[in-house]
Amino acid sequence: MYKLVLIRHGESTWNLENRFTGWTDVDLTPLGIEQACAAGRLLKAEGYDFDVAYTSVLKRAIWTLWHSLDAMERTWLPIVKDWRLNERHYGALQGLNKAETARQYGDEQVLVWRRSYDTPPPALASDDPRGQRQDPRYAKLVPEQVPLTECLKDTVARVLPFWNESMAPAIRAGKRLLVSAHGNSIRALVKYLDDISDADIVGVNIPNGIPLVYELDADLKPIRSYYLGDAEAAAKAAAAVANQGKA
Amino acid sequence: MYKLVLIRHGESTWNLENRFTGWTDVDLTPLGIEQACAAGRLLKAEGYDFDVAYTSVLKRAIWTLWHSLDAMERTWLPIVKDWRLNERHYGALQGLNKAETARQYGDEQVLVWRRSYDTPPPALASDDPRGQRQDPRYAKLVPEQVPLTECLKDTVARVLPFWNESMAPAIRAGKRLLVSAHGNSIRALVKYLDDISDADIVGVNIPNGIPLVYELDADLKPIRSYYLGDAEAAAKAAAAVANQGKA
Repeated sequence: MYKLVLIRHGESTWNLENRFTGWTDVDLTPLGIEQACAAGRLLKAEGYDFDVAYTSVLKRAIWTLWHSLDAMERTWLPIVKDWRLNERHYGALQGLNKAETARQYGDEQVLVWRRSYDTPPPALASDDPRGQRQDPRYAKLVPEQVPLTECLKDTVARVLPFWNESMAPAIRAGKRLLVSAHGNSIRALVKYLDDISDADIVGVNIPNGIPLVYELDADLKPIRSYYLGDAEAAAKAAAAVANQGKA
Repeated sequence: MYKLVLIRHGESTWNLENRFTGWTDVDLTPLGIEQACAAGRLLKAEGYDFDVAYTSVLKRAIWTLWHSLDAMERTWLPIVKDWRLNERHYGALQGLNKAETARQYGDEQVLVWRRSYDTPPPALASDDPRGQRQDPRYAKLVPEQVPLTECLKDTVARVLPFWNESMAPAIRAGKRLLVSAHGNSIRALVKYLDDISDADIVGVNIPNGIPLVYELDADLKPIRSYYLGDAEAAAKAAAAVANQGKA
């Protein structure tokens, strides 16, 4: 049996401000740092250990990983950073306040943008300064790989190849993976692992900073999955995520 | 022309306590964190940018790199961590106060242990709890690769193969390297790059947290090297390092 641990980054400055973040590279808040440290302490206390860590190229996930690893005395572990674990790109909504956007367009429209499987938010213009096509961290990608908006289906379409090329082979090779990523890149993995339908994934929300453990069989099919620590707190945090897009 | 930037980690808790550290994995102090951030801000202000970062498997160097990269908005850069960039192993002196050791054994003996090229300090017993042979980060090494003490010559003997296998090829491939390491792993590199004699390397001291820039020709021979920022402050900090082992 294999174990895989996923963590959504701790609270970011734009989580706190209730803004759509996407590929915008924002910092953790002091609470977010504490959540990351607490996740690491919890993993250590529960006897978890890892061989390699994965994260996106966005600093809220990177710092979450760094603080968690430090709390586990595992700063020295190798870390794979890949853009394919980035948050879903939020297109022209990046930077807007979620509640204000809901007041302007209605709760229903915002829920579609936030949670519809295949309807992306309005796209950024390719020269919009909020976009990432000039960002050096994506310089090796062809422009079409740097999205101007994404629906979850688009996120799945980049996360899964990375899972298949890098993460799954590492797990099969016996490596214990810790993955620090984002609400929607984790939802993409959860949808695939738990074989959740396009309709049902709408109701799945990932709380910040709580380790999500998957026990996987030899074919990497889930035997079970659970949040570490206080189950009630995890459920409450997930419900809070669901309510962010309401006016 | 190539550029290579070396940084000795910021002040650690055992720098502050004036204790021999070696492979003991101690934290940065608040000043050490600030030095690391300042190094990153300075590199950014001077227009430096990097493609890959190197560090040891000791957290004072790792955190120095992490804070520097954050100050440069380069948290997403790939990082290579390798034990061969570790500090010189200080043997049975690890944990002892430098000044107390000098009072007990004399300034001259401590200078020999600190700076002699080929006389190592007394070795740790292989089962000494201060040793690293049970540490999981070295689990893949054969026991003989995990030192019980080292002189600088021993450190050179592990740093140089890593330079030749990994760092030099990366530089020749056009990658701009930022290296966060330790007083003696940096002295090993400096000795090699500047072709400093076994006798003269005794007088070379590396200050904490100040970027040391090497401009290298096509054969990776130094054209010139210099500390970034306030030259007088760098000289003063290096002199302070030289004085640490006096009673």
